[in-house]
Amino acid sequence: MTTPSRPVPPAKTAPTGSAATPPDRPTAAPSLAERLAAGTGGILLLGLTPPRRSATAEQAADIADVTLRRLAGLDLDGLILYDIDDESDRNPDERPFPYLPTMDPAVFHAEHLGAWPHPVIIYRCVGKYPAPDLTDWLRSVDPGRVLGVFVGSSSADKPVHTGLAEAHALHDEVRPELELGGVAITERYAQRGDEHLRMLTKQSRGCLFFVSQVVYDVDTTKSLVSDYYYACAERGIAPRPVIFTLSVCGSTKTLAFLQWLGVNVPKWLENSLRHSADPLAESYRRCLATATDLVEFCTELGLPFGFNVESVSIRKAEIDASVALAADIRRLLLPPHRP
Amino acid sequence: MTTPSRPVPPAKTAPTGSAATPPDRPTAAPSLAERLAAGTGGILLLGLTPPRRSATAEQAADIADVTLRRLAGLDLDGLILYDIDDESDRNPDERPFPYLPTMDPAVFHAEHLGAWPHPVIIYRCVGKYPAPDLTDWLRSVDPGRVLGVFVGSSSADKPVHTGLAEAHALHDEVRPELELGGVAITERYAQRGDEHLRMLTKQSRGCLFFVSQVVYDVDTTKSLVSDYYYACAERGIAPRPVIFTLSVCGSTKTLAFLQWLGVNVPKWLENSLRHSADPLAESYRRCLATATDLVEFCTELGLPFGFNVESVSIRKAEIDASVALAADIRRLLLPPHRP
Repeated sequence: MTTPSRPVPPAKTAPTGSAATPPDRPTAAPSLAERLAAGTGGILLLGLTPPRRSATAEQAADIADVTLRRLAGLDLDGLILYDIDDESDRNPDERPFPYLPTMDPAVFHAEHLGAWPHPVIIYRCVGKYPAPDLTDWLRSVDPGRVLGVFVGSSSADKPVHTGLAEAHALHDEVRPELELGGVAITERYAQRGDEHLRMLTKQSRGCLFFVSQVVYDVDTTKSLVSDYYYACAERGIAPRPVIFTLSVCGSTKTLAFLQWLGVNVPKWLENSLRHSADPLAESYRRCLATATDLVEFCTELGLPFGFNVESVSIRKAEIDASVALAADIRRLLLPPHRP
Repeated sequence: MTTPSRPVPPAKTAPTGSAATPPDRPTAAPSLAERLAAGTGGILLLGLTPPRRSATAEQAADIADVTLRRLAGLDLDGLILYDIDDESDRNPDERPFPYLPTMDPAVFHAEHLGAWPHPVIIYRCVGKYPAPDLTDWLRSVDPGRVLGVFVGSSSADKPVHTGLAEAHALHDEVRPELELGGVAITERYAQRGDEHLRMLTKQSRGCLFFVSQVVYDVDTTKSLVSDYYYACAERGIAPRPVIFTLSVCGSTKTLAFLQWLGVNVPKWLENSLRHSADPLAESYRRCLATATDLVEFCTELGLPFGFNVESVSIRKAEIDASVALAADIRRLLLPPHRP
């Protein structure tokens, strides 16, 4: 395949921004890449969806500006920039929020996030890209500022340009120094019971960390990482850090969207959100309880971990709550959970 | 059916025992039956399996004596006496502990638990008994000292003498003043999703409270009682108290037995028990965490609740841990969870 349907833009060197490293994060501290490579936890990320592709350069710059000002008070270790795919193939139900093509995450990073002083983790839905384009991106990227997460197809039937195994092989061949992560999906574990073995396969192909899908089913998530931990122990290999993604849910529409995305929301939690006079406050409280539970569980288990906070909706109240949640989670991650 | 295969012995009036009501439980306090009828929670029970049927009267008396001494320091609201059925029909796997027929719970109560100052809840696996025998027992029982729980068949294919609906009709006809409860099974909810509706059906047939199967899957248990609570709210009826059963697990053999009994143990918890140097201490800690979680959840929901502590094994360490667990749970149930 030589004519890509959607080329991966090469990464550009982002201009040096004016935002300084926050005073309590001395620049001598290990970088995100170093900490993930060393397998230490206590990492806090914030996940962002790039602006829609129809945005003008000025609009995208405004969005970046507003976003960075929102994040200025947070002590984040990095950002995740999602690569949004039209996943309507995996769910015949109507999508509660419309699918809108978004800007390429590497372009958004290079052109608009120059003021961001920390690394970014760029997602790649590898099936979207022909191998030569993925190769070009791998060659162009700066591993000192960027990490990657390769995501496989959202359904087995979907035609892909590049499969996940092929993408991992390309990474190994072209740019092994780019630190790579994989996704870990609780709901796939619930259905098939082998997600922890998939994590081991990804690990054997070079993945140094994992990022979960949005966690609402904390109990099954604990089972997934427990099975992963003990499967590593059986093989005598060190478990890699698992970054748990949390997202608040401020309305029944957002709840429907989470469920459409395949997130399993336990019935009791769904009931409490549906019957709450303030579902956003309720879900905030539940997200914090989930984080507390996972901190305790992973610490006791000995699994390195971290959190990624995102908002699956673009409503201001939910985005603001995500930022507040990230600040609260940072406090949970204070030593001893952080190097 | 006029010739019962196993008659239900009529209840006898138990002799007045010497054990006094503990000093902090004034006799003017509402009785267990009054509290359950009023729908208040904060109830603490301890579940006992009667001695095996082959025990001599002297052995049974010794067992009763040892048991009551063990329970003397506990501030219990009552005892549950199980009616053990050979449930090998529901699981083709080998039973980890052998099935041994046990003494009838009403006989054990009448003949050996006279010193017990509080009410007992007598289980009846109704399928074991022809209707006339169940009728005789209902007629003979003292509703001031005894409550009942009717349990249906352990599998749909099992031939029964009396079905659950028939048993409820008999109760209504013969002895409606005997306070009756039903069982609530998380694992049935997980499989079929309608256990909360079965609870409503039992409630409409006169059940005033529910006792759960052993809870290890606290998340699904929360979903079950949440659905039950909101189903009651939709119908404008008051939810009845739900008594959650907890049992420690001190060995992989006890774990296998719990699983054989149909208890769903989340994989993370199974892993932690299997890999623990001290599974009894670990399971004790988990049981207490389960109780704490359920206290918080039900209190917030507004569902009246209580706990029943049992030991599914007859090992001394596990029985001792059960007694200690009951004492710890009583502390959790101090006001405002208790009238």
